[in-house]
Amino acid sequence: MMDNQNISRHISGQFNAELEAIRTHVLAMGGLVERQLTDALRAMHYQDVELAKQVIREDHKVNSMEVAIDEACTRIIAKRQPTAGDLRLVIAIIKTITDLERIGDVADSIAKMALDNFSNHQQPFLVSLENLGHKAARMLHDVLDAFARMDVDAAMKVYHSDDHLDKEYEAILRQLMTYMMEDPRSIPNVLKVMWSARAIERVGDRCQNICEYIIYFVKGKDIRHTNKEQLEKMLK
Amino acid sequence: MMDNQNISRHISGQFNAELEAIRTHVLAMGGLVERQLTDALRAMHYQDVELAKQVIREDHKVNSMEVAIDEACTRIIAKRQPTAGDLRLVIAIIKTITDLERIGDVADSIAKMALDNFSNHQQPFLVSLENLGHKAARMLHDVLDAFARMDVDAAMKVYHSDDHLDKEYEAILRQLMTYMMEDPRSIPNVLKVMWSARAIERVGDRCQNICEYIIYFVKGKDIRHTNKEQLEKMLK
Repeated sequence: MMDNQNISRHISGQFNAELEAIRTHVLAMGGLVERQLTDALRAMHYQDVELAKQVIREDHKVNSMEVAIDEACTRIIAKRQPTAGDLRLVIAIIKTITDLERIGDVADSIAKMALDNFSNHQQPFLVSLENLGHKAARMLHDVLDAFARMDVDAAMKVYHSDDHLDKEYEAILRQLMTYMMEDPRSIPNVLKVMWSARAIERVGDRCQNICEYIIYFVKGKDIRHTNKEQLEKMLK
Repeated sequence: MMDNQNISRHISGQFNAELEAIRTHVLAMGGLVERQLTDALRAMHYQDVELAKQVIREDHKVNSMEVAIDEACTRIIAKRQPTAGDLRLVIAIIKTITDLERIGDVADSIAKMALDNFSNHQQPFLVSLENLGHKAARMLHDVLDAFARMDVDAAMKVYHSDDHLDKEYEAILRQLMTYMMEDPRSIPNVLKVMWSARAIERVGDRCQNICEYIIYFVKGKDIRHTNKEQLEKMLK
């Protein structure tokens, strides 16, 4: 684990302040995306039209933050010509914000679904979906926390927790499929729930990506496409 | 439009050869991904088990190429400290290969679906899916071509062609939904076709992303999250 002191020492030097500003900006973007996601879930739960509209309205803020951070990263590379760990941090940030932006899109699409009218029959599915969504939001919260502290152990914990999300997603799929088979008229609406469930499951994958970037920054190793055994070995 | 001569002049200088090598590597990766996608579609069409297995086996090559190019990009930034257009090219490449790798995943998942057994009833859906897939493969081919020549006009053409893909996807969705409602027992299998259709539709989105990176490199402007009117104005 790398504590805050280590990170500060690591990114010290002439452009310490600039890098810190970008890091802070990323965490602010992450915080906004997390709020968008939980607001979208709340809007769905309470069928809160106003809140859903707000989430949809705010999505552009997430997009602007992505573009601004991206530009700041390119500028810092051109101006400061970072190497080693500093460069890895900038690259990790460039990749992280892409995933954060896509999680923002998921919040936006859940909010849009919440604006649709669901019959009471679908209430139980919305409950399952909400549980799934809160698990995903938790993963996002934890990975942002790991990012803030550049904590590899915390990142690995989030990484592995995606298994639970996947299992819960599979269970929801089976439940929705059974429902559609029993009541074919429900198919168009149940499909919307299904798309949302899949989108939420993908939030977990995106959080895993961010874990990989954290490990890439701290350990200097690209762990994408490595299997579990190789991974454990590498991190020992 | 930027012709090849312009690009060569642009990336001339001390690390011309290194940058050219990375560019060639990206095009090779793109070629492999394109082949994987068309092979997966052919495997689906002919229910060719061997070809499907081959696509699944080859997916790791796409992954390794992504990691290798990514490392080469980081190395070139650290060693050569590119600025302006050179830096934009490296950043554009880092982003492009992420999208290419995900398109490779789509090929892999279509191949896995092809390995499943479909009843004859689903044959017409597989035909629609194949048409959609070939449109997406065409987009990929054209965007790689635009990338090779860094041709903004060609990129914009690909960018706009995604509308057709979206419309065809929507039509397939409606067709599949009707089918499920008429024959609820088919739901589990038809859903697999639906996931594949959605994955293919996403290939179009990823090709659009690559168009954006081409424009970012040539024009130095980030066009993500801009609407059509703003875009036309910007490119004039």
